[in-house]
Amino acid sequence: MGDTASFTKTITETDVVLFAGLTGDFNPAHIDSEAAARGFFRARVAHGMLTASLISTVLGTRLPGPGTIYLSQGLRFTAPVYLGDTVTARAEVTEVDEAKRRVRLRTWCTNQHEKVVIEGEALTMVPSP
Amino acid sequence: MGDTASFTKTITETDVVLFAGLTGDFNPAHIDSEAAARGFFRARVAHGMLTASLISTVLGTRLPGPGTIYLSQGLRFTAPVYLGDTVTARAEVTEVDEAKRRVRLRTWCTNQHEKVVIEGEALTMVPSP
Amino acid sequence: MGDTASFTKTITETDVVLFAGLTGDFNPAHIDSEAAARGFFRARVAHGMLTASLISTVLGTRLPGPGTIYLSQGLRFTAPVYLGDTVTARAEVTEVDEAKRRVRLRTWCTNQHEKVVIEGEALTMVPSP
Amino acid sequence: MGDTASFTKTITETDVVLFAGLTGDFNPAHIDSEAAARGFFRARVAHGMLTASLISTVLGTRLPGPGTIYLSQGLRFTAPVYLGDTVTARAEVTEVDEAKRRVRLRTWCTNQHEKVVIEGEALTMVPSP
Repeated sequence: MGDTASFTKTITETDVVLFAGLTGDFNPAHIDSEAAARGFFRARVAHGMLTASLISTVLGTRLPGPGTIYLSQGLRFTAPVYLGDTVTARAEVTEVDEAKRRVRLRTWCTNQHEKVVIEGEALTMVPSP
Repeated sequence: MGDTASFTKTITETDVVLFAGLTGDFNPAHIDSEAAARGFFRARVAHGMLTASLISTVLGTRLPGPGTIYLSQGLRFTAPVYLGDTVTARAEVTEVDEAKRRVRLRTWCTNQHEKVVIEGEALTMVPSP
Repeated sequence: MGDTASFTKTITETDVVLFAGLTGDFNPAHIDSEAAARGFFRARVAHGMLTASLISTVLGTRLPGPGTIYLSQGLRFTAPVYLGDTVTARAEVTEVDEAKRRVRLRTWCTNQHEKVVIEGEALTMVPSP
Repeated sequence: MGDTASFTKTITETDVVLFAGLTGDFNPAHIDSEAAARGFFRARVAHGMLTASLISTVLGTRLPGPGTIYLSQGLRFTAPVYLGDTVTARAEVTEVDEAKRRVRLRTWCTNQHEKVVIEGEALTMVPSP
């Protein structure tokens, strides 16, 4: 309870190009710089799910850590992430159910200006070794 | 209301290796075949967020379509996706708020056996052209 | 002194293809399955420097950890790594020079059969925070 | 004896992002531009092992050439490589043991300003055809 962990990465154009290629999400907001310049955010932005995936990195490698199984994740996208922004994903344990081996966590991502870009909640299971 | 769309892709070992590389999520469940064989799912599985990202592909390229802005996404991971599985992500419009330009959708993913692997709900905004 | 850390990853065909692409090392031993079948190891093998790079992962993310600066690395390649092998890179602190902020480590990699595939020594510097 | 060969490549942000992804080396010095700006080198630098891998490219494709087997490599990292730097890896034969089919080489890498960024020695075996 109260334990926290984080993971930080700069979201580069390379990341966005590759994420589009992996997922097939070629929304022009991410891969068409001309359309994006005329669009809502005035420039290409990273896929929300790319940023959100850094939460999975925290859960699966740091807290609860290796072996963690994802049960659910809620995500609210509160601000755009631009190419070149540096995102920190964070998790904080809010509830532990030892009988069911479940861990609930508050999860959120901030950019380099400490602005929250994603917030939500995760539920995980930690299998017995 | 009631409109549906889908996107289908086979999740290969390459996808999982690249997704780990983009996100830093090197949870052994995804990238260590020896540990995964001894683990909960008995083999490497795809990152849940990789599969979930196919929902973003539906929203951002088909329904509501190009230009869509993601406001929120709920995700429940209900079954594992193994390397080589073919996933179909689907979305169905459940609510349209024309004044706020918001579209709510039921979203879910199935594997090639029609088993639901992810279910949840998305809220999107569709900017005026 | 005596602290240890490790990192494990299955070396997939994807990894070898991408490593060849990043480095330009198109030695047929790695990317020509026909030539490799007739060659010394009877099948494609991973680049030695790909396996060796997992040592850098241990040093730069676990021990000494984030911020570590690499000063030197010795490498002896003692056995081949085949596509699909699971490699564990390990490091053990053997000497600490607090005045110069230097840490010396024994470093080695094993495959899933505990066979040593690389051994050598690293010297690192840990900048003051 | 005395033969030389080289290989030159610009180290891009893409190379560094992909190398981090292949190896799992997410040391912030490489993938967090905010932390790197505050760190020892004042900007993101390439992984030392990425630059060092260009030596393997020379050995495995040019001198001794295709089919070469790596026996050992010593590496001293003498200066940082920044994103956008152009690195030339070089090898010069210093010893040939025809009976054992072994070739020893001096190996080093320079940046576009002729500054040595890596130096060391390689020992290779050249199988009979």
